[in-house]
Amino acid sequence: MDRIVDLVRKKRDGDELNLEEMERLINGYTRGEIQDYQMAAFLMAGSCNGFSEGEAASLTAAMLRCGQRVELGDLTRPKVDCLSTGGVGDKVGLIAAPIAAAAGLAVPMIVEAGIGHVGGALDKLGSIPNFRTNLSLDEFQDTVSRLGLAFAGQSNELAPADKKLAALRDATATVDSLALIAASAMSKKMAEGLDGLVLDVKVGRGSLLSGRTEARRLAQLMITIGRRMDLKIQALLTDMDQPLGYTVGNALEIMEASQTLQGSGPPDLTGLAVEIAARMIFVGKSDMSIEAARALAQQQIADGSAFNLLLQVIEAQGGDANALTQFELLPNASGEHLITSPREGYISRINADDIGRAAVLLGAGRDRMDDTIDPAVGIILQAKVGDIVQAGQGLCALYYTDETHLAEAVQLVEDAFRLSAKQPEQRDLVLDLVQ
Amino acid sequence: MDRIVDLVRKKRDGDELNLEEMERLINGYTRGEIQDYQMAAFLMAGSCNGFSEGEAASLTAAMLRCGQRVELGDLTRPKVDCLSTGGVGDKVGLIAAPIAAAAGLAVPMIVEAGIGHVGGALDKLGSIPNFRTNLSLDEFQDTVSRLGLAFAGQSNELAPADKKLAALRDATATVDSLALIAASAMSKKMAEGLDGLVLDVKVGRGSLLSGRTEARRLAQLMITIGRRMDLKIQALLTDMDQPLGYTVGNALEIMEASQTLQGSGPPDLTGLAVEIAARMIFVGKSDMSIEAARALAQQQIADGSAFNLLLQVIEAQGGDANALTQFELLPNASGEHLITSPREGYISRINADDIGRAAVLLGAGRDRMDDTIDPAVGIILQAKVGDIVQAGQGLCALYYTDETHLAEAVQLVEDAFRLSAKQPEQRDLVLDLVQ
Repeated sequence: MDRIVDLVRKKRDGDELNLEEMERLINGYTRGEIQDYQMAAFLMAGSCNGFSEGEAASLTAAMLRCGQRVELGDLTRPKVDCLSTGGVGDKVGLIAAPIAAAAGLAVPMIVEAGIGHVGGALDKLGSIPNFRTNLSLDEFQDTVSRLGLAFAGQSNELAPADKKLAALRDATATVDSLALIAASAMSKKMAEGLDGLVLDVKVGRGSLLSGRTEARRLAQLMITIGRRMDLKIQALLTDMDQPLGYTVGNALEIMEASQTLQGSGPPDLTGLAVEIAARMIFVGKSDMSIEAARALAQQQIADGSAFNLLLQVIEAQGGDANALTQFELLPNASGEHLITSPREGYISRINADDIGRAAVLLGAGRDRMDDTIDPAVGIILQAKVGDIVQAGQGLCALYYTDETHLAEAVQLVEDAFRLSAKQPEQRDLVLDLVQ
Repeated sequence: MDRIVDLVRKKRDGDELNLEEMERLINGYTRGEIQDYQMAAFLMAGSCNGFSEGEAASLTAAMLRCGQRVELGDLTRPKVDCLSTGGVGDKVGLIAAPIAAAAGLAVPMIVEAGIGHVGGALDKLGSIPNFRTNLSLDEFQDTVSRLGLAFAGQSNELAPADKKLAALRDATATVDSLALIAASAMSKKMAEGLDGLVLDVKVGRGSLLSGRTEARRLAQLMITIGRRMDLKIQALLTDMDQPLGYTVGNALEIMEASQTLQGSGPPDLTGLAVEIAARMIFVGKSDMSIEAARALAQQQIADGSAFNLLLQVIEAQGGDANALTQFELLPNASGEHLITSPREGYISRINADDIGRAAVLLGAGRDRMDDTIDPAVGIILQAKVGDIVQAGQGLCALYYTDETHLAEAVQLVEDAFRLSAKQPEQRDLVLDLVQ
């Protein structure tokens, strides 16, 4: 049997590793038998030389198998989830999941903490008073069985390799390999024991991938991995050049998700959440057309059933559901700083990554996994791309508790906005469907 | 200032790092501020994408500067050493150094332990009873000043980064990057504070590099690095397809080196040692032709002055110089196993790597740096490539103390020999001069 260093050499020389070899690496690493430096060399060799589709699938399978899976075997509902590659102001999953669950799916959603300028659903849900995401596997399975939806943080039981690999990749410049991104995301989602999955692959300044070609490659790779594991799967490529909706920051995004589920959300966010939910319904229910799925999704907002379901889930997980209608029960920032337009013009650009980084500076996100965050702080946009603003009119407001980095955040936000004399061309939010 | 992960990313993306950046990496790693996994990722990125000549030179300079240098500033003799990339039965340095020193050079030789099938001068010298190589920098400088020659093991004071990097490279499949090989070798030699250096770059089965093109590239890279640091330097490419001389094993090689310095060594070993010594004299003494240098080198053997100098150095470093004439004072193996020729024929090949690996199995070398070695054991060839042998005639003898791996070693040695009906074409030992 090859030694570990021989597997590293194999990848260095551009040769392909098989499933058994990937399992040796992943299992050995998870158990602490393979050192960080050997895994780092392996990840870098793959980052430089590339991983094949087969290797990406083997890596996903190895990462999946080294942990447990959610067991919802006796459930008759189709088990479907959605997966976003992450963006600024992206609270779509928190809206689409209750819609899909209210429409009859089971959504066993594992949520994660955010890192860098990309927020995480775990942090957003964490701003709801007393809401518990550290569910045991049993509690999680029970809540999904009963209500059709639950949110749980990643435990050490599900895809344990990923947590360790993610920290290592972060420190070794091996984050942005498409295969590693795909394997990480897919192994965690597959651990939910799904029948179907809808991917929301973000493209643009506020996302992992700024180019559409690369985003499409990632989508196709994840679809290939999913199909090899008999998953019904499709992907939307969606724009992430400006933040999604109007809010960035944890409690602020919970407010906006709540408003959207109550039918008064911003058009971009509402549209995308309904489309993602509709595609979840479509992949879950083989007898339904996408048009019918869209109508069913919209109905779950219109008749309040999606919102009511979310309130039930929040209560079932110990949270104060009143906070979703009485926002003063959510954490509130003490300071507000308004940014106004220096002149009249059309907003032609709002750089999502600048807005995201400004939010991190205010304390809404973390640069390192061990940074603490402030759930109350963040940014609320008051206009979006295509809107016309007057000189002195508000562009956005920064909500802060600690002034330390406020000036820096203000600078970033001011730089994020671009004004033009002409109305910019309207961009579609959904750029493409990959299936 | 970039974070360390940004430097790793830079190398991953194929960009060139400057001297300052290399120094941050090397100094940080040596001081323990940079983790093994970050350095492993950096080394692998360089192994996959390549390092430029400038980067190799910067890396060498950084590795050199993070430690101390031998100071022989007040010495009028030219300070010259030789450096072999390592081979099987390669005791050339132990012969060339006393010749060059006897001819008027100062040779401050840092010696290293062997690894794998490639032996190390430190282990060979270690077989001489009571010989001390763990000299302080002061003792080392003093002995070189007084006698013109001293042998010292690598200390933590000279090129300390290299020791740490070597262990990491061994575990992460980043051993055979030419730039890393060159930087490691050159930084250690430059720490000797040299004026001149002669490289013996081995080509063939028993060496690091089996192809002549790659060996030439390594030689050229090391010459470039040396010239940038104002070193007088040239390189010989020499054959390492069969072992050098007749002996492989530590005490056995000391015997053969002793015989060679007394004028009764095998022609290949004698010829190469004189040529290397002559080139050392040639680069050290700017007013001497290579022909004159060769004559001077030969004279140091003929008149016994090189051998006498070696005996003085051994005594100065605490060793029993009598062991170089009374070989029974050297460690002796308890068992002998003779391998004979199955039939008549010309020896057309003796695979140096098989012989080297057999010697390691007997205990003459180590697979890992923490393995212990047996100085007494090894292999003595009784015929070499081009010789004609009869059926039943001895090909070589294995000297062992522990029988555990004897059968395996015998098998390797038997497989190492190839016989042919026709006399093979004679190969030159010195393949090329690179300058």
